[in-house]
Amino acid sequence: MDRGECDRKKNSNVDIVTVLETQIDDLSPQVFGYLFDLLLNVGALDVFTQSVMMKKSRPGILLTVICPVDKINVCEEIVFRETTTLGIRQSLQKRSILDRELKTVNTQYGDVRVKIASQGKGENKTIINVHPEYEDCAAIARKFNQPLTTTQKIVLEAFFNQ
Amino acid sequence: MDRGECDRKKNSNVDIVTVLETQIDDLSPQVFGYLFDLLLNVGALDVFTQSVMMKKSRPGILLTVICPVDKINVCEEIVFRETTTLGIRQSLQKRSILDRELKTVNTQYGDVRVKIASQGKGENKTIINVHPEYEDCAAIARKFNQPLTTTQKIVLEAFFNQ
Amino acid sequence: MDRGECDRKKNSNVDIVTVLETQIDDLSPQVFGYLFDLLLNVGALDVFTQSVMMKKSRPGILLTVICPVDKINVCEEIVFRETTTLGIRQSLQKRSILDRELKTVNTQYGDVRVKIASQGKGENKTIINVHPEYEDCAAIARKFNQPLTTTQKIVLEAFFNQ
Amino acid sequence: MDRGECDRKKNSNVDIVTVLETQIDDLSPQVFGYLFDLLLNVGALDVFTQSVMMKKSRPGILLTVICPVDKINVCEEIVFRETTTLGIRQSLQKRSILDRELKTVNTQYGDVRVKIASQGKGENKTIINVHPEYEDCAAIARKFNQPLTTTQKIVLEAFFNQ
Amino acid sequence: MDRGECDRKKNSNVDIVTVLETQIDDLSPQVFGYLFDLLLNVGALDVFTQSVMMKKSRPGILLTVICPVDKINVCEEIVFRETTTLGIRQSLQKRSILDRELKTVNTQYGDVRVKIASQGKGENKTIINVHPEYEDCAAIARKFNQPLTTTQKIVLEAFFNQ
Amino acid sequence: MDRGECDRKKNSNVDIVTVLETQIDDLSPQVFGYLFDLLLNVGALDVFTQSVMMKKSRPGILLTVICPVDKINVCEEIVFRETTTLGIRQSLQKRSILDRELKTVNTQYGDVRVKIASQGKGENKTIINVHPEYEDCAAIARKFNQPLTTTQKIVLEAFFNQ
Repeated sequence: MDRGECDRKKNSNVDIVTVLETQIDDLSPQVFGYLFDLLLNVGALDVFTQSVMMKKSRPGILLTVICPVDKINVCEEIVFRETTTLGIRQSLQKRSILDRELKTVNTQYGDVRVKIASQGKGENKTIINVHPEYEDCAAIARKFNQPLTTTQKIVLEAFFNQ
Repeated sequence: MDRGECDRKKNSNVDIVTVLETQIDDLSPQVFGYLFDLLLNVGALDVFTQSVMMKKSRPGILLTVICPVDKINVCEEIVFRETTTLGIRQSLQKRSILDRELKTVNTQYGDVRVKIASQGKGENKTIINVHPEYEDCAAIARKFNQPLTTTQKIVLEAFFNQ
Repeated sequence: MDRGECDRKKNSNVDIVTVLETQIDDLSPQVFGYLFDLLLNVGALDVFTQSVMMKKSRPGILLTVICPVDKINVCEEIVFRETTTLGIRQSLQKRSILDRELKTVNTQYGDVRVKIASQGKGENKTIINVHPEYEDCAAIARKFNQPLTTTQKIVLEAFFNQ
Repeated sequence: MDRGECDRKKNSNVDIVTVLETQIDDLSPQVFGYLFDLLLNVGALDVFTQSVMMKKSRPGILLTVICPVDKINVCEEIVFRETTTLGIRQSLQKRSILDRELKTVNTQYGDVRVKIASQGKGENKTIINVHPEYEDCAAIARKFNQPLTTTQKIVLEAFFNQ
Repeated sequence: MDRGECDRKKNSNVDIVTVLETQIDDLSPQVFGYLFDLLLNVGALDVFTQSVMMKKSRPGILLTVICPVDKINVCEEIVFRETTTLGIRQSLQKRSILDRELKTVNTQYGDVRVKIASQGKGENKTIINVHPEYEDCAAIARKFNQPLTTTQKIVLEAFFNQ
Repeated sequence: MDRGECDRKKNSNVDIVTVLETQIDDLSPQVFGYLFDLLLNVGALDVFTQSVMMKKSRPGILLTVICPVDKINVCEEIVFRETTTLGIRQSLQKRSILDRELKTVNTQYGDVRVKIASQGKGENKTIINVHPEYEDCAAIARKFNQPLTTTQKIVLEAFFNQ
């Protein structure tokens, strides 16, 4: 567990994100599904919904949008326009992030992209996580009639064996 | 743990209920809240909703209505009429139930109803559970400016001390 | 509320569906997302997931697949192949369903499909529900830069005014 | 999508709210239901619960209370008094809100209140959302034996046609 | 996808399980956590809880117990004794199951158990799934100060390389 | 309800906590279960997960860790190391807390610990909540073959009668 607090602090990346939240009890779930692409396409970093229990036994939805500070206005516009919400709450959060890079691995299926998450630079660079790109693996899985998890496993092995 | 399987079989009550289920992804939560009283008023035994994740990232709702067999038609009518569902699934279930009786307890607040759940008859009668009626306690709690749980505790003590 | 129980019984449609269920605590959510299309493409009627709390504080997933009786085998194959489940539960359910038909409505946007849910035939035909097709409305909403709900409302008005 | 960022900034309303949160794993759901009215009656803006998975496989509840800054003390008092929580977290959030006004519409049912959400003033006033008041519609729906959604639709049409 | 429906039918295993369900709105989550071990220790196959929204805005819990037919009585006894429920619903379900066997793999950490799920016998035996036993991997992960997922990956590699 | 705002402010305790949050859509629930003890053992005050609906119909998990400010680094290390997350959001929250003390009560079962939550000091000390320690009661319940809730009730009575 002890990787050296000093090292970690030198290596960690930090950015600032905005968290937009609104709880809604009078909107069809279809609209929430519709919102995902709309918000991600204008630059939201992440969008998710949660089930909340509201007054009068209403099974409402809490919508959360994580976005860069310069996307607050365009994201709020979309949410006000598409939903029935009367208010959107906003808070700034510091975020510790890993460095990410996309690498291409040559596999029996052809080229597959792999996302590598790391901390630190140069000598101090530590790989924390390696994950094959979902869309690439899903396409291969469907094409070769093979389980998604098996596909991901094979791609990972190709990455580590190169 | 061993209360004698024989005794328990002699003592247990069984009835049959219908479970109606439908998952909906295009209806406002307000309508689900509205449905509770409608269904309970026509004789449904219980109504509840659950959050389900449906295709296209829709945070849908699974509605469940537990009703006696002779209430299936009237409950289905209400659900088809008030919601956007195109189909309602139905299954019969056996249900082990405890005997229930409502007793009135005299307390410092006046009379309060208490529900007693038991198994068995006469000599073999075992009290499993005693619970003060919610509405009576809520009214007292609000009136006397006292926590709901404290109110319930006092009523229970009055019951056991009588 | 009283539409005549007799009329309703003459008018209601009933079919039989299978409900496949399995709760899984050791699988990535990405695989569940991947499963939706796979199962719907082989003829499943509906697929959804629910959050369940399992032993050892594991936030597991309950997968439900609703399918016609003749699709049980192919759906189970997919679930066994793609997920880590060791067992899939199965039950038959009767289902009350509304008649559905797709109609095309001419609107200011061009042709849009509308789904009409009804009960009964001929003279006894009662329209229960009218809902514009989601994909048609989503495409229009994106193209004309207009809220999804506004688009659906305009299409519905066009339908009722024709 | 482009309504002019300038216009929007001139038109948007902002206020500050407090978000109180506490996660509880040893309290009956009945108490949470009881809390809604208590908190809304003392001026909380919104109250909702969420299901959370806590240690030792406990299906706990996260309670959230949104309130004005000057209601923090009275809301915390209620939560400490009625629940088993040992700590309540607190954060301030900026909130973008729409202007709201209640208008009365004359309909075939009599007068019905409608809530109008808008942005901007005078010439720049844009109506974002119109929603019939729930309690008015629910009362009409029950009285005239008519679906809630149909009732809401008729009221909306009356509003737009006046 | 086509593995031959004939082969699959010859190879699939089927058993019968009971599903016990009860929805409860007046019990502390601590008791549900307590129930897991109690029920699993008397032979329940699986136990899980789900969040349900019940009347009066109560965030209730739906408890599900999957058990063999000969364990119904003892499981119901425990649930009636430990919880406030007044009724437990019951249904029988057919279950398609994979064959499971536990094998021991020799790894750099010592012996680790691995669960192999398969279909078919002899020549027709197909391995569907291999999963290292959780408790073995968790113990190793804590002892060697290594991520759980890395530990599971190493054990799997040892299995496939033997 | 009116206990005097002045009194309350003199009596309330306040501390500062950090809330770490991350939403993950590609990790097995087993790892989340594994994380609870790891994080609680290094000093996290609380850990919980929530079900969230993410893009592409993925039933993801939102992990929340409440920790003291001086535990941020070690908690983040654990989460980065054990999970697939690429970013952890962080916010500081003020927390109103009750005073807690553990007292030992002598009961028919032997000594049992009870947690007392209070506000205020000396003359102004008000007991808000008394709750028997879960582990003590669970051990007794299993040993004496008695419902957990009955055990807790008996311990509470012993406390109030001493």
